[in-house]
Amino acid sequence: MSKEITSRQQDYSQWYNDLVIKGNLADYSAVRGCMVIKPYGFSLWEKMQAQLDRMFKDTGHENAYFPLFVPKSLFEAEEKNAEGFAKECAVVTHYRLISDPSAKGRLMVDPEAKLEEELIIRPTSEAIIWNTYKNWIQSYRDLPLLINQWANVVRWEMRTRLFLRTAEFLWQEGHTAHATGEEAVKEAELMLDIYAEFAEKYMALPVIRGVKTESERFAGAIDTYCIEALMQDGKALQAGTSHFLGQNFARAFDVKFSDKDNKLDYVWATSWGVSTRLVGALVMAHSDDDGLIMPPKIAPIQVVIVPIYKGNDKKDLLDGKGQELASQLKSRGISVKFDQNDNARPGWKFAEYELKGVPLRIAMGLRDIESGTVEVVRRDTREKMVMSLEGLTEKIITLLDNIQENIYQKALTYRDSRITKADNWAEFVRLLDEKGGFISAHWDGTPETEQTIQEKTKATIRCIPLNNPLEEGNCIFSGKPSQQRVLFARAY
Amino acid sequence: MSKEITSRQQDYSQWYNDLVIKGNLADYSAVRGCMVIKPYGFSLWEKMQAQLDRMFKDTGHENAYFPLFVPKSLFEAEEKNAEGFAKECAVVTHYRLISDPSAKGRLMVDPEAKLEEELIIRPTSEAIIWNTYKNWIQSYRDLPLLINQWANVVRWEMRTRLFLRTAEFLWQEGHTAHATGEEAVKEAELMLDIYAEFAEKYMALPVIRGVKTESERFAGAIDTYCIEALMQDGKALQAGTSHFLGQNFARAFDVKFSDKDNKLDYVWATSWGVSTRLVGALVMAHSDDDGLIMPPKIAPIQVVIVPIYKGNDKKDLLDGKGQELASQLKSRGISVKFDQNDNARPGWKFAEYELKGVPLRIAMGLRDIESGTVEVVRRDTREKMVMSLEGLTEKIITLLDNIQENIYQKALTYRDSRITKADNWAEFVRLLDEKGGFISAHWDGTPETEQTIQEKTKATIRCIPLNNPLEEGNCIFSGKPSQQRVLFARAY
Repeated sequence: MSKEITSRQQDYSQWYNDLVIKGNLADYSAVRGCMVIKPYGFSLWEKMQAQLDRMFKDTGHENAYFPLFVPKSLFEAEEKNAEGFAKECAVVTHYRLISDPSAKGRLMVDPEAKLEEELIIRPTSEAIIWNTYKNWIQSYRDLPLLINQWANVVRWEMRTRLFLRTAEFLWQEGHTAHATGEEAVKEAELMLDIYAEFAEKYMALPVIRGVKTESERFAGAIDTYCIEALMQDGKALQAGTSHFLGQNFARAFDVKFSDKDNKLDYVWATSWGVSTRLVGALVMAHSDDDGLIMPPKIAPIQVVIVPIYKGNDKKDLLDGKGQELASQLKSRGISVKFDQNDNARPGWKFAEYELKGVPLRIAMGLRDIESGTVEVVRRDTREKMVMSLEGLTEKIITLLDNIQENIYQKALTYRDSRITKADNWAEFVRLLDEKGGFISAHWDGTPETEQTIQEKTKATIRCIPLNNPLEEGNCIFSGKPSQQRVLFARAY
Repeated sequence: MSKEITSRQQDYSQWYNDLVIKGNLADYSAVRGCMVIKPYGFSLWEKMQAQLDRMFKDTGHENAYFPLFVPKSLFEAEEKNAEGFAKECAVVTHYRLISDPSAKGRLMVDPEAKLEEELIIRPTSEAIIWNTYKNWIQSYRDLPLLINQWANVVRWEMRTRLFLRTAEFLWQEGHTAHATGEEAVKEAELMLDIYAEFAEKYMALPVIRGVKTESERFAGAIDTYCIEALMQDGKALQAGTSHFLGQNFARAFDVKFSDKDNKLDYVWATSWGVSTRLVGALVMAHSDDDGLIMPPKIAPIQVVIVPIYKGNDKKDLLDGKGQELASQLKSRGISVKFDQNDNARPGWKFAEYELKGVPLRIAMGLRDIESGTVEVVRRDTREKMVMSLEGLTEKIITLLDNIQENIYQKALTYRDSRITKADNWAEFVRLLDEKGGFISAHWDGTPETEQTIQEKTKATIRCIPLNNPLEEGNCIFSGKPSQQRVLFARAY
């Protein structure tokens, strides 16, 4: 009973859905635009969370929790932020259901239980958090305030896709407060670096660090920094953002502090977030037509051991040896599954763990035990190796490191081969259609040109890379003078 | 600037609020009935979560995530459950805001963006989860399904209290599916045992395991098991519940499985949960008039080191020694804070960490360094000890164990002294008013008597203890025959 996966070439988008659903990462739900994250997918998210949380805490951040609801009057206080999110808000208007007199067993909203003020389900928490910071910050001694929250948020998206864009999603949102603008900018940059390090070292996902143009900025930000990744179909994916918010939210919520000279000033802010979208990025960046490919550092299962039973012949011996090997690996911090389920054949298991992207598979039969060896197969290269049981743990650790590095290098080579310069409009359009990836091109710096290019090609400016070299040139579209290239792409 | 705490005798309820607010566990929010969990309070919850999560995983449970929203038609499918929660539901009716034409800068709900079907914010997730399980369970091979979710839920309570009862709260909810009723009952009992072990071993909170009467049962359950704790004001607090749901939800959502003989039957269910309410229980069970008292096993900070500077004299030496001690303790897994803040005096810090309930405080001055000693103070007993720096780590580990045990024994002695038998109505009422605690008394088994007793005394039946001895007697209120005593109390 092998599960059919659509190939990438056949239908990239269906391939992605097949991997998510058949790889047991997530499932559709009864709620429009919301998904169920299944145990295998959730354990992947837990691994990502644990690592990110460590990195946040190592840089002095603490976790806290703020309400799910934002009263409308707070929601609208920072005007640009409100405007940006108003069109996709879930709104709570009532707090009670009563029996529906016209239909037995049915309930209806109690018209008597209307809220005086509507509550918005947080699409992001700047408003509720800055309204709270107002009570926490009086003096420079209260700064910096470095807080992160792991939470669910809701944005009523019209077109949703598993992990990549869902109405409800899980994320972390950092919200920090500082005494100076410079310090806040530094914080926003630091968090971008942490996201980039996480993406590259743990997810094996190469990213470009950059800054967004005005029209792609977070609503209410002065600057939005981002990391941009490239998927196998040549489309870009924004994998994380970090915002320098200036004093916008401090002004909206009247958050002032007295500095060392007792002078009052508004507080400076940042916010930054990554979400379960990263799971989608992971799937699309590394997987192949046989299933998922998990980078060892965040794989829920790093090694699976499959015993090859011959009926009940010496089953105990095989089970004993398997348990022993599993314990050895576990004692070194490797997450191992020893699959003793005897309802499924080895071949079915092999396909199943390939589909789930387990980095290393160890098969172990009676003959192996006699010869003191096992068969080890890498998921990324399919390489099959016969290895001695002696010293196996060390070799497995090295192999996992090699796989992590190989997956990263592969993604990096692919990505780098798809950053292409275009110097005229025809080339730009041709490259987008034929090659995809990032197109590095001159742009005249106006939102109007940016918008026209998007309308004509569906490509957006993904970012202006950090430390971008200056270079005289002419806008790919308007021909007007430009000082630097920016990165265009079609994107998720 | 010491923070005033109301004493327990003066006003128990204000004492509790003072501890929560001034101890930096939580804060009020701008949203009716919702609170903000501050970093110190959240780190306590994280410690509790981490331990519970370990215990769930060690018993074969996996985490997953289901939608925040429950469509009304699913919500009403299990009739008793729906009826139980209908009167306290937050309901999403719209998905967009637009500019309010009558007020510049204001937003209003877009009447055009009304949902076809209202969405209830989960007060508990049986409905959405069993609607999903329908697709996951076909055969006995898919069972048992042992899933847990960490999530926020909303119950529109009219009277709220920080941690103890809030409109939104954080919790975990386990939802399991089984092939037989016996297996499901076993699961519900197992999870109750895990909750009890967690409460007693980690929170140092003695609990009584029991089963609820029909009127106190979870809406939709066949049986509700519970753990009940006693607070210092003699009121009981339900600290966790585990429900045997029978086939009620399987019937409501048509979840059937084929057994080994290919016979179709409805699936059996349990659900179980504990919440941030446990933080409130912890505060009320152990703290005193000077502040919180944290059990070492879940204390966010187990040991604080306070250097006693004499101006800048040998500050570096003191800082070096403090760092060294902190590293030693950390290397043994102890969570330590070395408080080098020189804006605050030692006396202020002592009061602050007492308020925060840090189990051990180490003070270290220049004279201590000369004599190779430190001053160690226990938060629970206030005992002051001068200890040699040599071998200090081992002694600290032992001390933390002693404190954990002492806090538990103190709570146990108090609790046990407040389980009192009452054999007539006058005694029952007098005990409730004068002594509080659990009153062990006969009850005739009818919901009517239970309700009348509650109306007359505000006491409810907290539980029928597990393994309750049978004993002939007469109902405390009606005089009718009864076979066992049950535990009454006024409760949170």
